[in-house]
Amino acid sequence: MTAAPMTEDERLPQPAAADIDLVTVLHALGDPVRMRLLLSYADGAEHSCAPRDLGLEHLHKSTVSHHMRVLREAGVTATRVAGRNRFVSLRRTDLDARFPGLLDALLSAAPAPGPV
Amino acid sequence: MTAAPMTEDERLPQPAAADIDLVTVLHALGDPVRMRLLLSYADGAEHSCAPRDLGLEHLHKSTVSHHMRVLREAGVTATRVAGRNRFVSLRRTDLDARFPGLLDALLSAAPAPGPV
Repeated sequence: MTAAPMTEDERLPQPAAADIDLVTVLHALGDPVRMRLLLSYADGAEHSCAPRDLGLEHLHKSTVSHHMRVLREAGVTATRVAGRNRFVSLRRTDLDARFPGLLDALLSAAPAPGPV
Repeated sequence: MTAAPMTEDERLPQPAAADIDLVTVLHALGDPVRMRLLLSYADGAEHSCAPRDLGLEHLHKSTVSHHMRVLREAGVTATRVAGRNRFVSLRRTDLDARFPGLLDALLSAAPAPGPV
C-alpha cells in the first residue's frame, strides 16, 4: 500500500460545517482576545499567526496560538498550513449557512478593535 | 434622614442597558444550561426559578441559581423579587437596542430545547 500523496497545503482539523455548534461558537467568542481575532478576520483575508500582525504583540505567541485553536475547533476559523507558515481565515460561508444573520449581528455589535 | 420607602417588588442588581458588553453576553450564553434558560425565557414571560419549571430538574437548585446569576450580571435577564419569590425575564428590549439582530439570530440558530 502506497502512502497517499501529500498535498502541498493542508488544513488543520476543523468541524464539518453541519457540526458547528452554536454554544461552542458563543463560548469561543465570549473572550476579548478571541473577539479581537474575529474582528481581524472579518475582512475575509488570510492572516498570519504573528501576534504583531493581529494587534496582539503584548501576548505570548503560545497564548495567541491557544486562542486560535479554540476558534478553529469551534468552527469559526480555518487554518491552512503551507510549509512552516499557517494562515487563518474566517469560515464566513459556513457560519452564515449554519446560523443566518449571527455573524453580521456580532460584527455590527462588536466594539471597535482596541487593546485587549 | 428617613430611610427610603421600600417598594414591594425589587430588582436584583443588573447592568444598565448601555453597559451591556457583547463579549460578556457571549460568554454567558456559551454554556448549554444557560442557552437552555435563554430558550425558556424567549417567550417574554416571567419565569420562576424552580428548576422543574425550567426543564432543569436534574440540576441542583444552587447550580441553576449560579447560571441565572451569570445571565443577570451579563445583562441578559432581569430578576424581580416579590417577597420570597423571584421572577426572571429576558431583557429583550435592551438587548435588541444594544445589539440589533443578535437575539433573533441566536434564537433562530439555537437547537430545540432538549436535555442539557
